Amino acid sequence: MGKYVAGIDLGGTNIKVGLLDLEGKVLAQASIPTEAERGRDVVIARMCESVTLVCQKANISSDELLAVGTGVPGTVNTRKGVVMTAPNLPGWLEVPVTELLRQKLRKPVVLENDANAAAWAEYWQGAGRHVDNMILLTLGTGIGGGIILDGEIVHGSSDFAGELGHIIIDYQGELCGCGNRGCLEAYASAPALVRRFTRAVEAGGTSSLGEKLKAGAEITAEEIHQAAVGGDALAREKVEETGMFLGVGIVSLLHALNPSLIVLSGGMIGAGEMLLKPINDTISQRAMPEIATTAEVVFAHLGGDAGFIGAAGRALKECCCEV
Amino acid sequence: MGKYVAGIDLGGTNIKVGLLDLEGKVLAQASIPTEAERGRDVVIARMCESVTLVCQKANISSDELLAVGTGVPGTVNTRKGVVMTAPNLPGWLEVPVTELLRQKLRKPVVLENDANAAAWAEYWQGAGRHVDNMILLTLGTGIGGGIILDGEIVHGSSDFAGELGHIIIDYQGELCGCGNRGCLEAYASAPALVRRFTRAVEAGGTSSLGEKLKAGAEITAEEIHQAAVGGDALAREKVEETGMFLGVGIVSLLHALNPSLIVLSGGMIGAGEMLLKPINDTISQRAMPEIATTAEVVFAHLGGDAGFIGAAGRALKECCCEV
Repeated sequence: MGKYVAGIDLGGTNIKVGLLDLEGKVLAQASIPTEAERGRDVVIARMCESVTLVCQKANISSDELLAVGTGVPGTVNTRKGVVMTAPNLPGWLEVPVTELLRQKLRKPVVLENDANAAAWAEYWQGAGRHVDNMILLTLGTGIGGGIILDGEIVHGSSDFAGELGHIIIDYQGELCGCGNRGCLEAYASAPALVRRFTRAVEAGGTSSLGEKLKAGAEITAEEIHQAAVGGDALAREKVEETGMFLGVGIVSLLHALNPSLIVLSGGMIGAGEMLLKPINDTISQRAMPEIATTAEVVFAHLGGDAGFIGAAGRALKECCCEV
Repeated sequence: MGKYVAGIDLGGTNIKVGLLDLEGKVLAQASIPTEAERGRDVVIARMCESVTLVCQKANISSDELLAVGTGVPGTVNTRKGVVMTAPNLPGWLEVPVTELLRQKLRKPVVLENDANAAAWAEYWQGAGRHVDNMILLTLGTGIGGGIILDGEIVHGSSDFAGELGHIIIDYQGELCGCGNRGCLEAYASAPALVRRFTRAVEAGGTSSLGEKLKAGAEITAEEIHQAAVGGDALAREKVEETGMFLGVGIVSLLHALNPSLIVLSGGMIGAGEMLLKPINDTISQRAMPEIATTAEVVFAHLGGDAGFIGAAGRALKECCCEV
């Protein structure tokens, strides 16, 4: 039996890959361009190349691989191993990715969506190592997530569970990119922070970023955070407001699912304590005490490696035994 | 091995009890006063009497019982079999109910909270018989719930999962009895319907219930529904609004958990299609199409029997084997 697992984190720009031992230790990793524009067959070949590459790096034969896991940014059918849609991968529509990879790699292949893979990574090797019930929220251009209850990923009836950016925090609220009103993502994603901050400046608020905005330049969530760190009161207010909105969404999740851990990942967590404090304050103010006191909110531990670590972990779990 | 299971639905007023065969068929049932005011030891004795009574009714010996399940209206520690708090049962604080019952009945005893027991009943023998992922919402004076994913109840890290009345639909919204703002329960419970309707009349709305309200009399959600059935436009508007609010809460649950079924139970479901249609309309308008089209909202099948059926079902599941 193989002594290693490989995990592939397929992105629109890069394929990240890692080779892990069965305890979850990363022995080697690599990143190669996806070349998504060359179409799905090239991408499948690139994924296989990435596995070969990481085996070479670790100086092991691919025969020693137990299984390969892959995380994909899109909608997936995990049972059938099919990628249904993947907006950032041209030509990917109902692609039987596990079968295509299995034919080339001659190893069992397991498919997961990228957010669930990241959640599994944190559960298996990261911030959630000591809990059975945790929720990962990925905070960036959009808000996504993965839910782990009693040590298993919640997939739902058709693999759509974990659309945590689209829980509603204000039924009459902001229009969301999904067409609905009041989604968490419409308040607490990076673009939503930029939008709320820009509006506040346009409404007469004073900020060190005011001139840049008035000149018509685009600003980023990161710039707002940096301004806040530099003493910009309006920027700080809007970053903290983001935390409050996240706290509201998290309170709903705590009341529904009573997890012991919420893990935050993605670009937005660069705001650190300025984001975390209002989240915790909101939970203290709004959640039932019995639920609030048994839950903790922390930042993810694994950063950009979570995708391939979680993919490898799923492969190990599905193909071997309990991990 | 026993061929029957008993289920006890402990309420503040009555103890309902049922005797079921291992396929879940109800062979006998009974209801006796709880006599909660006489304290916890009397109630425990009454629970045991209820089991004896239902065995007599079905003409079987209690030796033939495989196990006994009990559903309790309060916070419970299911692993330890302890009722932590039960607001409607004087003196019930950290009561090791499974141990107390086991000593008297000499059978394995399983504890569940009442909403989870009802959810399990619908999953095992009612509206959810053909699904793996369902959510029960109990709609009455409060809003509660139970979540079943991949064929198991979600308990969370400390048995508080399923507080579905306290997911937030408007972060700046109505004050809820829990102290938080904007909880689903503050919009869509029976008292919330009465409150919204009363406000609308006070604001000048015309209704057949207007005179009664102006005379200072109390009205019920049921009366509002009856007025709506009788052609009262304002009453209908407020019942339908209740459905819209429920729909918003359900959309959040669909996006988070992607269940294939939402089961509604409790007194409010008497409003029937007048409640169900705006729920479904809201889901169609607000949920992602892939998620909305794979989910159905239905009314519960088991009515007031769900409590003891679910309790019996949990006993069977925990003490015997997969059901």
